[in-house]
Amino acid sequence: MADYFVGAKEYFPGISKIKYEGPKSKNPLAFKYYDAEKLIGGKTMKDHLRFGIAYWHSFCGDGGDPFGAPTHIYPWNTDAKNPMDAADKKMDAAFEFFTKIGAGYYTFHDRDMAPEGANPAESEKNLFTLTDKAKKLQKETGVKLLWGTAGLSNNPRYMNGVATNPEFGVVALAATQVKATLDATIALDGEGFTFWGGREGYMSILNTDIKREKENMARFLTMARDYGRKQGFKGMFYIEPKPMEPSKHQYDFDTDTVVGFLRHYGLDKDFRMNIEANHAELASHDFAHELETAAAAGMFGSIDANRGDSMNGWDTDQFAISYYETTLAMYTILKIGGFTTGGLNFDAKVRRNSVDPADLFIGHIGSMDAFAVGLQAAQRIIDDGVIPNFVKERYASFDSGDGAKYSKGEMTLEQLAKIGTDAGYGTTGWTSGKQEYLENVLNGYLLGL
Amino acid sequence: MADYFVGAKEYFPGISKIKYEGPKSKNPLAFKYYDAEKLIGGKTMKDHLRFGIAYWHSFCGDGGDPFGAPTHIYPWNTDAKNPMDAADKKMDAAFEFFTKIGAGYYTFHDRDMAPEGANPAESEKNLFTLTDKAKKLQKETGVKLLWGTAGLSNNPRYMNGVATNPEFGVVALAATQVKATLDATIALDGEGFTFWGGREGYMSILNTDIKREKENMARFLTMARDYGRKQGFKGMFYIEPKPMEPSKHQYDFDTDTVVGFLRHYGLDKDFRMNIEANHAELASHDFAHELETAAAAGMFGSIDANRGDSMNGWDTDQFAISYYETTLAMYTILKIGGFTTGGLNFDAKVRRNSVDPADLFIGHIGSMDAFAVGLQAAQRIIDDGVIPNFVKERYASFDSGDGAKYSKGEMTLEQLAKIGTDAGYGTTGWTSGKQEYLENVLNGYLLGL
Amino acid sequence: MADYFVGAKEYFPGISKIKYEGPKSKNPLAFKYYDAEKLIGGKTMKDHLRFGIAYWHSFCGDGGDPFGAPTHIYPWNTDAKNPMDAADKKMDAAFEFFTKIGAGYYTFHDRDMAPEGANPAESEKNLFTLTDKAKKLQKETGVKLLWGTAGLSNNPRYMNGVATNPEFGVVALAATQVKATLDATIALDGEGFTFWGGREGYMSILNTDIKREKENMARFLTMARDYGRKQGFKGMFYIEPKPMEPSKHQYDFDTDTVVGFLRHYGLDKDFRMNIEANHAELASHDFAHELETAAAAGMFGSIDANRGDSMNGWDTDQFAISYYETTLAMYTILKIGGFTTGGLNFDAKVRRNSVDPADLFIGHIGSMDAFAVGLQAAQRIIDDGVIPNFVKERYASFDSGDGAKYSKGEMTLEQLAKIGTDAGYGTTGWTSGKQEYLENVLNGYLLGL
Amino acid sequence: MADYFVGAKEYFPGISKIKYEGPKSKNPLAFKYYDAEKLIGGKTMKDHLRFGIAYWHSFCGDGGDPFGAPTHIYPWNTDAKNPMDAADKKMDAAFEFFTKIGAGYYTFHDRDMAPEGANPAESEKNLFTLTDKAKKLQKETGVKLLWGTAGLSNNPRYMNGVATNPEFGVVALAATQVKATLDATIALDGEGFTFWGGREGYMSILNTDIKREKENMARFLTMARDYGRKQGFKGMFYIEPKPMEPSKHQYDFDTDTVVGFLRHYGLDKDFRMNIEANHAELASHDFAHELETAAAAGMFGSIDANRGDSMNGWDTDQFAISYYETTLAMYTILKIGGFTTGGLNFDAKVRRNSVDPADLFIGHIGSMDAFAVGLQAAQRIIDDGVIPNFVKERYASFDSGDGAKYSKGEMTLEQLAKIGTDAGYGTTGWTSGKQEYLENVLNGYLLGL
Repeated sequence: MADYFVGAKEYFPGISKIKYEGPKSKNPLAFKYYDAEKLIGGKTMKDHLRFGIAYWHSFCGDGGDPFGAPTHIYPWNTDAKNPMDAADKKMDAAFEFFTKIGAGYYTFHDRDMAPEGANPAESEKNLFTLTDKAKKLQKETGVKLLWGTAGLSNNPRYMNGVATNPEFGVVALAATQVKATLDATIALDGEGFTFWGGREGYMSILNTDIKREKENMARFLTMARDYGRKQGFKGMFYIEPKPMEPSKHQYDFDTDTVVGFLRHYGLDKDFRMNIEANHAELASHDFAHELETAAAAGMFGSIDANRGDSMNGWDTDQFAISYYETTLAMYTILKIGGFTTGGLNFDAKVRRNSVDPADLFIGHIGSMDAFAVGLQAAQRIIDDGVIPNFVKERYASFDSGDGAKYSKGEMTLEQLAKIGTDAGYGTTGWTSGKQEYLENVLNGYLLGL
Repeated sequence: MADYFVGAKEYFPGISKIKYEGPKSKNPLAFKYYDAEKLIGGKTMKDHLRFGIAYWHSFCGDGGDPFGAPTHIYPWNTDAKNPMDAADKKMDAAFEFFTKIGAGYYTFHDRDMAPEGANPAESEKNLFTLTDKAKKLQKETGVKLLWGTAGLSNNPRYMNGVATNPEFGVVALAATQVKATLDATIALDGEGFTFWGGREGYMSILNTDIKREKENMARFLTMARDYGRKQGFKGMFYIEPKPMEPSKHQYDFDTDTVVGFLRHYGLDKDFRMNIEANHAELASHDFAHELETAAAAGMFGSIDANRGDSMNGWDTDQFAISYYETTLAMYTILKIGGFTTGGLNFDAKVRRNSVDPADLFIGHIGSMDAFAVGLQAAQRIIDDGVIPNFVKERYASFDSGDGAKYSKGEMTLEQLAKIGTDAGYGTTGWTSGKQEYLENVLNGYLLGL
Repeated sequence: MADYFVGAKEYFPGISKIKYEGPKSKNPLAFKYYDAEKLIGGKTMKDHLRFGIAYWHSFCGDGGDPFGAPTHIYPWNTDAKNPMDAADKKMDAAFEFFTKIGAGYYTFHDRDMAPEGANPAESEKNLFTLTDKAKKLQKETGVKLLWGTAGLSNNPRYMNGVATNPEFGVVALAATQVKATLDATIALDGEGFTFWGGREGYMSILNTDIKREKENMARFLTMARDYGRKQGFKGMFYIEPKPMEPSKHQYDFDTDTVVGFLRHYGLDKDFRMNIEANHAELASHDFAHELETAAAAGMFGSIDANRGDSMNGWDTDQFAISYYETTLAMYTILKIGGFTTGGLNFDAKVRRNSVDPADLFIGHIGSMDAFAVGLQAAQRIIDDGVIPNFVKERYASFDSGDGAKYSKGEMTLEQLAKIGTDAGYGTTGWTSGKQEYLENVLNGYLLGL
Repeated sequence: MADYFVGAKEYFPGISKIKYEGPKSKNPLAFKYYDAEKLIGGKTMKDHLRFGIAYWHSFCGDGGDPFGAPTHIYPWNTDAKNPMDAADKKMDAAFEFFTKIGAGYYTFHDRDMAPEGANPAESEKNLFTLTDKAKKLQKETGVKLLWGTAGLSNNPRYMNGVATNPEFGVVALAATQVKATLDATIALDGEGFTFWGGREGYMSILNTDIKREKENMARFLTMARDYGRKQGFKGMFYIEPKPMEPSKHQYDFDTDTVVGFLRHYGLDKDFRMNIEANHAELASHDFAHELETAAAAGMFGSIDANRGDSMNGWDTDQFAISYYETTLAMYTILKIGGFTTGGLNFDAKVRRNSVDPADLFIGHIGSMDAFAVGLQAAQRIIDDGVIPNFVKERYASFDSGDGAKYSKGEMTLEQLAKIGTDAGYGTTGWTSGKQEYLENVLNGYLLGL
């Protein structure tokens, strides 16, 4: 019996289920480090990493760029009789891919799965038709929905914003999509629902009322949250910070900005961060910074796994392969007890000139391997304890005596200043941060296997 | 009688009070556009612009850069018998400059005004000695203190942070400075007190506990606020956002980040933003963005007027001269009713190779003129009404009917989606943002005088 | 008689020839500063500025972005029976626009003007069909061709490079386009021929042989030059530097890089720079820097007039409106005697959400006005002489005595060192660069009219 | 007998010669991967890597930053009677460090080694006094001089430029330093002489004549080259590209710019690139890009090993620790046959808050280990041949038939276009670049040891 799904037609012929073959394998279509059932710290790699496949990049992305036409020509489109037929075939291809690559999860936009119809009712009908099929295929394959999201970026009607659009009618049309996609996500037992606000920002500050737009955005999110909860949605809502592109400025600039926004509008109980490495970088942050910042706020949720190019200033959505990034990401995640509802969703695409069908597998395999390496290195960091203990010790003066009193807020500025005055300057503060030492220690964890 | 102050020695000989000579003047030591008493919208330019001179750049900055030795050699230092004598002479020079340039305000760090002593008590004594002199000179000249701040960046003891230092003893020493500087600010009738957290961040995420550091920072600010209020300080506390440098990452990254932080810790009633153009740029924001964002949050306070270089990635602190930046800044300020406690403080320095003593005047004159131009252009924008009305109209669909209901939060997602479904797609949203039109209109305001 | 061209159908109804109405006009469809026949320094504005309209952005660009579908729906496409019919109608629209806006020049890619056929021969035939029409319309309207270029970016066959493609067959197909477009350019009396190497670079250094690719590129340019000259082309060849996007790295990174390349391969007699502001910025250069650098090398040619957004890291191609940029650009151009073959080609597009047909006019009008302001300010800089004379004086020590000897290369290091040793240190070099002074002077020129 | 040098006083007590202890060692003061005598591809690690220690960062750098006072207080300074005594002690400390860390080379500026005197003659005397001592210590320890350079950045006299200064007298003073440092380098059997043009650029384009400055720079380099050769200097001259900082713009922007400059002025036979990772990054280039570009031009020379922070926009000069960067660097170097005169000079400094004396060792150890890992990974890449062969095959169509004819320049554009026309479009060019595959292959080489 096949260990992967194939629908009416096999869309990736010649490629069967990707196997773990170990570090010495030279087979591009095998895992070298990702061994799904291997236990790391008492949990399987698969359960740690919770890989998700993005419907949009992998089955909809066409390889076009601002200066170039599509290069990825998919048989599920070229063979199809009409858009709904293409959508049906695409879903077969998707589940074939999910099961061949061995990912436990997938993610989707409404418009990835089903084409927009002539009116909102028809769009909804299209979506539900495909949702029914997805439900069946999920059951058949065991693949689950990590999260759903509404595609609120592509259609021209959103060119001036979605929830932040200055035209009320647009907000109402956005609501038709969010409601339907929430319904679909609930129907598919989705573990989350994401908002990516690519158009929630401005192109020109000259025509923009920031206050009004932010308030409208908060209202929209509140209504979506309320609706979801009323319908019994138990999953997490996610915001995916991004600073810019396609908007000149996006209101969900980075984690700290979004955390502040959610708290201000009373949304911080239901929303968490879905952090993307490439977006972090566009906001002048390391991926690790964004993860640690979300974790510190108690609002880490999920990851859109990819990488940007620090020498290019746009969203390249490449596959994450740096062991440094995967190790630090998994270290943060292990420190906070692992993923709860979220996972590692590959918001990554093969390059425009990666036109072999196998490239889609190869891109995912490389990144899955890189996260498997990172997971193991992160576990070593925790098991050895050198770095976590160093950090703990570094703040020890706040754990007892006056420091502890300070930490509890039981001190006035006069009392604190008096402590300083009594102590005098001396060499207080002349303490090495030991950055080079810690960097060397980290480097040591990366190599062993 | 001289219309400017001179102490025991004249430090800028050959330069007397800078006069307004009008646009045709070729005198580098005259204002071309800044005419202090000229009424703009019923208020004098002086009262609109509330110019402040920064003690640090203008009288302490030595022209050194990371690759070069000091080039600005000041007579108040070279002539002095000891650091306290230098501080005394420097203050004479400062008030001479304030009155010659015609600025109504100044700003200072404790360490700009008085040297650090051998211990906190001596440091405080030094500061109060100079504060007494400043009080006298303020009275004599009418120059006022816009805000004070504690210099918590330069001393090696702060190399690992100030309020976010992992060593409690450092926090206590920082408190000695903040308390004394608050006392001094109150004594000098300062209208504000600023925190610039250049060291409140991290150099390496590997040795850092972000959660703990942010909590410690909030606690420290809370204690300072409480102390100030107890001592009768009625002014505004300011945070000056900056994303990085000298730290790799600074917790006060940008306005949205700081607003979120202040609200979360209950500090938003007492703190406002002090926004610096150069810092905005380092955070990938336009100056106008930061101002509008602060205004939208109701938390705009003051400005550190300068400019960066968008082609260089560090804090260049040049004088603001772009009419675009000054116009948009003044437009935001006029829209919210003008400065209340804050002002336009020149956090700017002459270039390392600007070694003529007159350059200090010329740098300030150019920027004061540029803000005078910007103020008048901003007033024209408001008087003409084209841009403000365009923005108002753009959101008109939220002012009545269902849009208004939505704005008041009296709608569920189902109701909103039903409106969308009933309306259908049509061409809803296909509305021009008219960006090019508004840019042209703006360009028109810049040229007339 | 109409003072503009209209073909079988008027594509911009309701808009007639754009007139100069002066600074006080509030008409968005009138020039405020650009007065074509006004003499500046003895030459008309029109002859100074030599405005060109880009076929691609203005008549082909569809408003799509990497996250959004097309928003600019053109009647010449929607009304057409087939691609050649659309191309024919588009050319009518283009000449209608050229003549209504009053631009003396236009620029085109082969694929802007005529669709690609089923094979190179058919593509060429399509192009020549449209070229014949363009020739007729040029004659009828007096509009001239500033330069032509081959569209070597969009088609998937160029995804791995054009002249730098690792596959010889691609280079041969590129040659079919370059040859045909050169022929067309010659037929249309084009004053130049441009190469924009958007795909001449690499996506990954791992699969790239830089040496081989650069040599292939030089060879291709050499062959094109040789062919053009043989066919009697007297115009200038241009390279348009760009550092990246769509490629990760482009070999034509910036002016200095291209100048070095052209000189090394013996192409510097026939090629000049076509400098684009947005590309300059992406390469971390000010527009003025690139212009001055090209001028210093004697290799300035033409301008792709637009602007980027220094807060966004991609090619936004907005209309140039900053008086600072237009003034400094025109200052450089006036200093070297004005344009010879080149001109100000608007490589700029209206925003995705600027969907009013009038926006295309408004965008161009604003930028034409901004260059008119810049031209006049630049002329004032030159007439007043303050800045040029300052610069001249600054280097005066190289004009006589030992300095002049040094400048002529008639000195050894020993002789030079001896002069230094004999002089001693003193305060040699402690000379103000007067940057703030010059910035203020520049600011003064911008405002008067 | 001690296996390291100690002068009159031991400056790093408690630290003896750093030993290789292997990957399992937890000793921060031991090498884990760098095993000096281990053979890699038939050559010892030591001979491959040719590590050099930078005098300036390691023994002169004081930990100051633009917002903070010095934190690195050195006993060779605090114990000294006068600047020459400090210089003497510092040299003892330096050679102690060189021999304890086991670096075969060092590099220096004249002003690192000896203080500037009251006049050029005294400065030269100071330098030669220390050079004599260095000569003795080199002989005693076997440590060699990788290259020397003149410190032409720090002194205020260079604030407007060095060879590009508008004042001839400054150029003459610069010549005194270059001549003396060249003499010293020759006396010390230095293998190279470097120019880092940090001040060879401009602060403001308004006061700058780019053409004149570049010509003056070329003249100065020519004179230095001629003098060196006349004195029998057989080593290589190096230019170290850097785009900016401290200058707004530096003429030696990047490798391509410098290569073009050197070729234009006939300096390309005597000069090579000294490439710094951090400078590459500031110029928007990957380190690997700059190395490959220099290698492609036949002008690679040496490396200033360090790293920047892609999230910060200034020269952080951190220790290189990324295995990705060290592997790709060593891969390029192995491909071109290894270092000839150059080496891996650590132009890196411990962080301002790394105030343990041991940190200086730890920083270097970590980076030496990282390059040892990179060297071995690079050798594996070459031995396996997968990547190099892929690249070779990718261009195979240029090795025979028409492609080869094209490569030899034996084809006209007409002939080339005819080949294209005859072939037709088909799917020519639709070839995967296999970027993801190659990235995965690279990732595989990093982990094994």
